[in-house]
Amino acid sequence: MYNFGCSQYKLQSNPPRNFGVVMYNSFDLLDISGSVEPLFLLSSQQRLNLSLIAETLEPVHMRPAPGESYTAGSHFQLSINPTHTFADPPPDIDVLFVPGGGGERFGDNSAAVDFVRRTYPKVRYLITVCTGAGVAAQAGVLDGKRATTNKWAWKDVVSNGNNVQWTSPARWVVDGNIWTASGVVSGIDVIFEFMETFYGEEIVRLIQNATEHKRTYDPCDDPFAAWNKVPPSGDCRLTPYLHHE
Amino acid sequence: MYNFGCSQYKLQSNPPRNFGVVMYNSFDLLDISGSVEPLFLLSSQQRLNLSLIAETLEPVHMRPAPGESYTAGSHFQLSINPTHTFADPPPDIDVLFVPGGGGERFGDNSAAVDFVRRTYPKVRYLITVCTGAGVAAQAGVLDGKRATTNKWAWKDVVSNGNNVQWTSPARWVVDGNIWTASGVVSGIDVIFEFMETFYGEEIVRLIQNATEHKRTYDPCDDPFAAWNKVPPSGDCRLTPYLHHE
Repeated sequence: MYNFGCSQYKLQSNPPRNFGVVMYNSFDLLDISGSVEPLFLLSSQQRLNLSLIAETLEPVHMRPAPGESYTAGSHFQLSINPTHTFADPPPDIDVLFVPGGGGERFGDNSAAVDFVRRTYPKVRYLITVCTGAGVAAQAGVLDGKRATTNKWAWKDVVSNGNNVQWTSPARWVVDGNIWTASGVVSGIDVIFEFMETFYGEEIVRLIQNATEHKRTYDPCDDPFAAWNKVPPSGDCRLTPYLHHE
Repeated sequence: MYNFGCSQYKLQSNPPRNFGVVMYNSFDLLDISGSVEPLFLLSSQQRLNLSLIAETLEPVHMRPAPGESYTAGSHFQLSINPTHTFADPPPDIDVLFVPGGGGERFGDNSAAVDFVRRTYPKVRYLITVCTGAGVAAQAGVLDGKRATTNKWAWKDVVSNGNNVQWTSPARWVVDGNIWTASGVVSGIDVIFEFMETFYGEEIVRLIQNATEHKRTYDPCDDPFAAWNKVPPSGDCRLTPYLHHE
């Protein structure tokens, strides 16, 4: 299925290979899958490795976070199995990926925050989706950087980082080696931009075609900032990417 | 996080409550999560239940299917834990959801196909995403119906159902109680349409806002049919929904 048949495409000389996803309970499933799925399709053409890293090897649940109102009597959850623990992660993560979810705001995320704090200096890139920026902000790694997050959860998330240059409107923001996406589905646009940057336009066009994703190409195209009455701040425009070789 | 604060909204008198997802190895993660995540957000307001149904209770893997070319030396997989087996499913599924994935075309899907064949008559709605339509077609439940699927995988999938009115262009198609989405990301548009039909516009607007999804509202808006040179066939327009009470 995933033999895209493209004979050649532009490729950075030393593209990222090893992706690590920070897992914590009450994560948002689509925050993870929006990036993992396009990378999975890419992994048939490029040597890519995926690690799912959590506090323990027990299944990690998408479910209502402690303190969330969940009064409708639903039983709606799903669990994913980690491959590594925060105490024993893979040694060679190129890209650390931090999803959002209710657990970011209502759960005990201290283990995930600590892991991001001590791991960020060793990785080449950090990508956050949605309220995952709140985890990165608590870890202090966004200090002094431009970053964005979910506009609906804006006030809660930005309170995690007083020294962050929170940027709105913005569908995503790149500052140095940190890529921050806005709400859930914007993460799909970000991973396409990321893949195009490092693996070239041709393969990304094929993956876009296979997933039928109508990409947003302009990082400033963010109707949800106005919908959520988030005041303009910062500069959403892309700057030249830093390539950490 | 998920208290949307909407006091009331239009609601069908007997909306679907119980969602069952058919799981099989080499599924596409985003096919599942594109629907599961918006429904999860809805589940804080509406009583909704989720079952993940597979041949056994062992973890089900997103990974290259047998026979797929996967020569890049990658190690890129993820596993989800089922809650029920095909032999012992929940008795009261309102909505049966069938995702796609490489396993649809290269794996042994006979258990999933059999389950869809015998379960469809008992459910109120069937939703397929991407090549999930191929599983439904093999089960025979699309015979005589209009349906669509991933345009990139079009030829392979339509060969599974000679008596299906395969429809292109179409981002999605509704015929009777069967909703079929096109490629992966179109499933997000379909679940929003489905939620709006049964749970009302107000809550769906809030969930769209929280997920920052730029919806496609027109089921005929399908640029990927032309991209993939799929000849026009059938009628993509929506017909009045059948409400199975």
